[in-house]
Amino acid sequence: MARQEPGDLSMGKKAVVLLSGGLDSATVAAIAGSAGFDIYALTFDYGQRHRTEIACAKKIAAAVKAKKHMIFRLDMRKIGGSALTSGIKVPKRRKKTGAIPVTYVPARNTIFLSVALAWAETIGSKDIFIGANAVDYSGYPDCRAEYLKAYEKMAALAVKPAGKKAIKIHSPLVRMSKSDIIKKGIALGVDFSKTHSCYDPPAGKSAACGECDSCIIRKKGFKEAGLRDPIRYKR
Amino acid sequence: MARQEPGDLSMGKKAVVLLSGGLDSATVAAIAGSAGFDIYALTFDYGQRHRTEIACAKKIAAAVKAKKHMIFRLDMRKIGGSALTSGIKVPKRRKKTGAIPVTYVPARNTIFLSVALAWAETIGSKDIFIGANAVDYSGYPDCRAEYLKAYEKMAALAVKPAGKKAIKIHSPLVRMSKSDIIKKGIALGVDFSKTHSCYDPPAGKSAACGECDSCIIRKKGFKEAGLRDPIRYKR
Repeated sequence: MARQEPGDLSMGKKAVVLLSGGLDSATVAAIAGSAGFDIYALTFDYGQRHRTEIACAKKIAAAVKAKKHMIFRLDMRKIGGSALTSGIKVPKRRKKTGAIPVTYVPARNTIFLSVALAWAETIGSKDIFIGANAVDYSGYPDCRAEYLKAYEKMAALAVKPAGKKAIKIHSPLVRMSKSDIIKKGIALGVDFSKTHSCYDPPAGKSAACGECDSCIIRKKGFKEAGLRDPIRYKR
Repeated sequence: MARQEPGDLSMGKKAVVLLSGGLDSATVAAIAGSAGFDIYALTFDYGQRHRTEIACAKKIAAAVKAKKHMIFRLDMRKIGGSALTSGIKVPKRRKKTGAIPVTYVPARNTIFLSVALAWAETIGSKDIFIGANAVDYSGYPDCRAEYLKAYEKMAALAVKPAGKKAIKIHSPLVRMSKSDIIKKGIALGVDFSKTHSCYDPPAGKSAACGECDSCIIRKKGFKEAGLRDPIRYKR
């Protein structure tokens, strides 16, 4: 059973929640749960370098009492084009240039949302949650509010018209800073020790690299929030 | 090398073409080729009942001299919700009711276009071709022009802004009747004996069932075009 607030209008409603195993999606799952949705967590095994995040996603799905947790396989290494899915190196201590970094995975959120849409339609859900964030992020085009709004419009036309409500893409973090996301997660009881953010985890270690964009943004977020990050870093 | 018309402006440009192995996508591939695009054919092994269409897609990709042909695996049986991807029976000799039939696969075109979008971005293509058709079809929501237009708008925001041209979703068949599609294909030299349309091919036979929606629409199209269908039917 997902957590349910008494009297909440969404009580017993189903939501598909994209759950990567990272800090953002863990917070989003907690938000969906606290809003009374039954959580159908969806995680992708897409050939990512940081596959260890899937184990984290399982822990988070259990923590938010997801009704179901689907691990969907989809080999994006066949397409490549990213440091996360090909032999391209993950940059360390990268200076911000304004350019979209090589860790960008072409159309990743579009693909993930599309599988979420299929699952939502099948289980009779009109609500999809995604942890996209356009403040403390790496400039990925598919993390912006305008993209998500366009996706929502497309989704309304993509599926069977059933009832009056169209598909809603919930992206509650899209305009939040990383430190505010962390504070929100803590307030909702998220155990961030269960999350994983590193793009390039050192082989054989349970620590994060501490130097990729994702580690840098996470560390800065905890620092700004005045909180201790419970995970271990190599540097 | 894809076929190229002399002086065509799109000469040497890359297009990702969704190729199911059916009559529509074979015609679309021929249209893309005749417009001078280099064809990057994309076929999905998605757990479909009529998996035999993948073998047809390979023959068609060879016939249009595709630069590459990617078979992308993605198990939609995990999601289900369709007669093509679950135990639900494919209806035979179905009467048209206006309702969307059980052969509809939730969000299938949205998922397929999203993988096409990822590949297009990776190879530097701005052109995606899909054989969606909203005239002689089964009422699937993701085959309509308004859906495809909304997809195109979303796609423009989903990927890296590179150059002035946004992603174009080409759906040259969307307003054509099945008989016109067949005539167009014949005019472009498509060998329809290489295509497969049946949703529920009888086990162990190379014939099509002749009674599912897809067979019925195909047979009617050939009849209206005054042409002989080169494939064999059980009935």
